[in-house]
Amino acid sequence: MSKLNASILIIGNEILSGRTQDINIQYIAKKLNKIGIQLSEVRVIPDKENKIIKNLNELRKNYRYVFTTGGIGPTHDDITSISVSKAFKRKYEINNEAYKLLKKYYINKKLNQGRLKMTKMPRGAKLIKNPLTIAPGFYINNVYVLPGVPIIMQKMFDSLVKTLNSSKPIISRNINTNLYESTIAKTLTKFQKKYKSCEIGSYPHFDTKKKAGNVNVVITGTNKSTLEKAIKEIRIALKKIGN
Amino acid sequence: MSKLNASILIIGNEILSGRTQDINIQYIAKKLNKIGIQLSEVRVIPDKENKIIKNLNELRKNYRYVFTTGGIGPTHDDITSISVSKAFKRKYEINNEAYKLLKKYYINKKLNQGRLKMTKMPRGAKLIKNPLTIAPGFYINNVYVLPGVPIIMQKMFDSLVKTLNSSKPIISRNINTNLYESTIAKTLTKFQKKYKSCEIGSYPHFDTKKKAGNVNVVITGTNKSTLEKAIKEIRIALKKIGN
Repeated sequence: MSKLNASILIIGNEILSGRTQDINIQYIAKKLNKIGIQLSEVRVIPDKENKIIKNLNELRKNYRYVFTTGGIGPTHDDITSISVSKAFKRKYEINNEAYKLLKKYYINKKLNQGRLKMTKMPRGAKLIKNPLTIAPGFYINNVYVLPGVPIIMQKMFDSLVKTLNSSKPIISRNINTNLYESTIAKTLTKFQKKYKSCEIGSYPHFDTKKKAGNVNVVITGTNKSTLEKAIKEIRIALKKIGN
Repeated sequence: MSKLNASILIIGNEILSGRTQDINIQYIAKKLNKIGIQLSEVRVIPDKENKIIKNLNELRKNYRYVFTTGGIGPTHDDITSISVSKAFKRKYEINNEAYKLLKKYYINKKLNQGRLKMTKMPRGAKLIKNPLTIAPGFYINNVYVLPGVPIIMQKMFDSLVKTLNSSKPIISRNINTNLYESTIAKTLTKFQKKYKSCEIGSYPHFDTKKKAGNVNVVITGTNKSTLEKAIKEIRIALKKIGN
């Protein structure tokens, strides 16, 4: 579909332990879709330097954009920035612009070790502004380093997304049916073969009260008129079967 | 921490498009923690055969357990079972036991192409029973293949989890503080060095109404008494700072 692709690297023990429910994937995915960037892979890894370096180097080689979330705070378990520096073989140092921002923000307070840590990043990195809590994220080549706290990440991503290359938005239409997925499988296969530029997905749900399933058929693509044509034909075909 | 580790491979365009919010990671993570299995990595990939094979082969080599979710239904976009067969270089064929289960379930209906597809898996795979919608998952060596629909996945995982090797449960305690993360960073570093068998994490939240943050300090480990000792000392130390 889209030639512009992206991946997310979620750095966070809290997701892997189940303590925190991730909501960043969906947020980023939706925003990327809107500007025609296809999210093609997500990895969730622990706050471990060797893991961060290895995974980041794999992803940044394979995808146009890589977004990392988590691990850029002031505490000992925040090791994303130093790890990114190592992945890029760049010096990990105080960024002057970030230093000025934090100095101004904490005007009556000491720029202690923890706060100072949030100004450190790979040499040559450029800032991603943080309107809420000031401590910035950064980007270097195709890697965008963001915080894990959703409300802060979202604000930063919203301004960042405007700076990315965009292509035709990825749009989707859906049909809900009470037919069995197995009953409509053959029909969907036929339409997938006919409409190769679209992606036809079939997503069953299960209603525990009714003890019955239903299926959401989703057609995705970048060409609106093809999409509308496909959805119309599929709708008719499903009605013939019994929907 | 735990020597028993695991990874999850989420196979699903619907997660990558942002259409669906994943809730399977957290469910599996929590259940694994309880029996001392550490979830160490998660990957979300599209329903593409080459991606499934590549990622599955990497994960199954690196982790004691691999759980896949999604892509085992009857439609054209469900390609997990055939891809797993290829990853293991096993024949993809009708499993007799699965066939009998579905034949019995659809007693008055035809076992059409879609339904028949749900009985196909790698030769030698063993079934994971599905009490809700009958079509089973399967496991082969250290790879457990589950559906993506959360309610069905959960029921299947609940019975499956009893069959896994277990070790000491991974337990955690937490302290909530209104202090800045940057203010407590140094103290937490000190305790992390003192309690090497525990993992001390620091997770900021941001309250948009109050325009203020607070921090959740989480101490994780498998030794309960060490954990209690650590949490007691950290609590005292944070009180001294001002909590």
